[in-house]
Amino acid sequence: MSERLDVAAPGARGSGTPDGAPRAASSDSQVRKTATRLADGRELFYFDDGETAGATDRASFPDRRRLREAAPSSTIRFDPLLDEWVTIAGHRQTRTHLPPDNECPLCPSRDGHSSEIPAPDYDVVVFENRFPSFAATSAVDRDDAPADDPLFVAAPGLGRCEVVCFTADHDAAFSSLSPARARTVIEAWVDRTAELTALPDVQQVFCFENRGEEIGVTLSHPHGQIYGYPFVTPRTTRMLDSARAHRERTGRNLFADLVEHELQSGTRVVTRGEHWTAFVPFAAHWPLEVHVYPNRQVPDLPSLTDDERRDLATVYLEVLRRMERVHDDSLPYIAAWHQAPTRADRDLAYLHLEVFSIRRAPGKLKYLAGSESAMGAFVNDVLPEQAARMLRDVVL
Amino acid sequence: MSERLDVAAPGARGSGTPDGAPRAASSDSQVRKTATRLADGRELFYFDDGETAGATDRASFPDRRRLREAAPSSTIRFDPLLDEWVTIAGHRQTRTHLPPDNECPLCPSRDGHSSEIPAPDYDVVVFENRFPSFAATSAVDRDDAPADDPLFVAAPGLGRCEVVCFTADHDAAFSSLSPARARTVIEAWVDRTAELTALPDVQQVFCFENRGEEIGVTLSHPHGQIYGYPFVTPRTTRMLDSARAHRERTGRNLFADLVEHELQSGTRVVTRGEHWTAFVPFAAHWPLEVHVYPNRQVPDLPSLTDDERRDLATVYLEVLRRMERVHDDSLPYIAAWHQAPTRADRDLAYLHLEVFSIRRAPGKLKYLAGSESAMGAFVNDVLPEQAARMLRDVVL
Repeated sequence: MSERLDVAAPGARGSGTPDGAPRAASSDSQVRKTATRLADGRELFYFDDGETAGATDRASFPDRRRLREAAPSSTIRFDPLLDEWVTIAGHRQTRTHLPPDNECPLCPSRDGHSSEIPAPDYDVVVFENRFPSFAATSAVDRDDAPADDPLFVAAPGLGRCEVVCFTADHDAAFSSLSPARARTVIEAWVDRTAELTALPDVQQVFCFENRGEEIGVTLSHPHGQIYGYPFVTPRTTRMLDSARAHRERTGRNLFADLVEHELQSGTRVVTRGEHWTAFVPFAAHWPLEVHVYPNRQVPDLPSLTDDERRDLATVYLEVLRRMERVHDDSLPYIAAWHQAPTRADRDLAYLHLEVFSIRRAPGKLKYLAGSESAMGAFVNDVLPEQAARMLRDVVL
Repeated sequence: MSERLDVAAPGARGSGTPDGAPRAASSDSQVRKTATRLADGRELFYFDDGETAGATDRASFPDRRRLREAAPSSTIRFDPLLDEWVTIAGHRQTRTHLPPDNECPLCPSRDGHSSEIPAPDYDVVVFENRFPSFAATSAVDRDDAPADDPLFVAAPGLGRCEVVCFTADHDAAFSSLSPARARTVIEAWVDRTAELTALPDVQQVFCFENRGEEIGVTLSHPHGQIYGYPFVTPRTTRMLDSARAHRERTGRNLFADLVEHELQSGTRVVTRGEHWTAFVPFAAHWPLEVHVYPNRQVPDLPSLTDDERRDLATVYLEVLRRMERVHDDSLPYIAAWHQAPTRADRDLAYLHLEVFSIRRAPGKLKYLAGSESAMGAFVNDVLPEQAARMLRDVVL
């Protein structure tokens, strides 16, 4: 199955609940989406932008591996003290751990090496995670607690986990992509967010990238992930609670007010595009942390206009490149898309990206130790205004 | 100044607000406390249990170093989205980082090496941190935001940070202490909690140990820390909110109910002493995680009776030894004492210890990546019932 990807035109999608309406066809993005399945039944989607030759026939390469059908066993358990869900996924203990480069499961397949991607090349590809924290069907781990104990509440870990490969080039990085290729990744995020939002079990769609062995990334090939959670995540819940209280108190949107005040202050602004603003937050938790907001409130990535998506590709690449060049050292980072829950508070939420690093100086990392991990009390050794200055001073 | 430490007798201290009343003198612990000051004016306290000879004259060894007076510059900033304080402590960037063993600042001083501890030996010692996140006086970092902006609220990082050395033996570990020495550490925690509770700026006293380079411990000498925070920490706030809602709903204490239900279920209980119960929580966030509760509700360490403290030394050592022997590998861990806030909710809170490790298997660590760090959604690869079984099966 291959289709020209329909990209949302300006205003094609409101901030209400998802309506499942087809996206408007007008788009300046020439992304072609091709769907296929892997040997164990998992879905895989190629997103080709025409920069690569031979993108027309991706689905003609079958997955020749013999794979056992995946049997994810994942449970969510409710922590009554912290008032949040924890996911217990015992089957993930056996997942692939730092394979040698010539066995990379995210490189295209070639003679003698069948990877997760059957085709011999690709632009951007998305597929279901072989070791998912959440899946469409999931056995509940047996536990011996009484099923009706209100302090021991569990449920199946329903949802969906996908892997997003940003490029076929094993040694590249997101920051080295062309703006056109970054735009293709954005289109893939948009497409997957819209599809995962439509799944009945998914309450929040989270597109993110973990980068660097220092934060436990087990595959070095440039890639990100998408989680479709069966609950609204704890941090999003807290942000929305704050936004709700702020609206009741002021009638205004808290996120919008924060962006406006950061612009007025100016000292922590890193860069601005036509449609996006990037700044170090006033109360940054991490030594290097940049938040990137669209200049108008939208709930999620599919709600962005063509212009906003094009500008995002440029601004995001600039932010990553500035962050990577602040220290004369590798930069482990997490890039996290905060989208509205799929079925609640879509008018309260405000799409934004948070990128942060544990690098606090060359050769030095910020670890989450007792204060952060046990008490949630962050101690940041870098003044946010100083971090913003270093980021602005980078010569690109 | 040297004094026989007065230890709280049973019932000597209620669960109300701290009253500053002297502790009752009856105790089976023979701990002697000796106070002195370091060259830059910081306080230092020796806690000697008589296991070491020459403990009578600790204060006769002056700190001969030339130290510039510490000028901590720490600010707390309020994050209006997460509804929590973040500490910005720029001066800590220059702190001691993995010094060679013969320059250990936590070993006793000797000819040719003046450490943080002037005496040539000690049992347990506590002193003010040279690079504190919080201090009695603290300059507010200048920031250019308007001082009256309700979205940019900052305050001085007032409070206190102390270091606790568990033993003079550089190569030891908490788990290798004798029960008598562990008891001395407990008495030091009790003493420091009572004194920090009495400081006007301190809202919560947090005794903890970070152990292992894998979680960023910069000094390998066996030691812990104590933070006196100028706010109630985010995680404690959430727990108390849950406890408050539970009490309104049921009239009961949530922590006490959890301990009772864990005992009824039994599958996650690791060990029990006469006065303490240790279990893996139903919704454990970490691959190896044990919570240790006293069998009656008390707000903090100073409220424990002699019997409870003696039993704690035994139970805690057993828990640590079991945890360290589950995997055939070093065990990085965080041990965190959850005490009641100093001035609020002392009847709602329930003293307990949470010990957890990022070790998920030999050679493998659990990292906090996108889901945990950005969304607060923990994915635990180890079934809590299985972790409890492994812990119980350890032969000590």
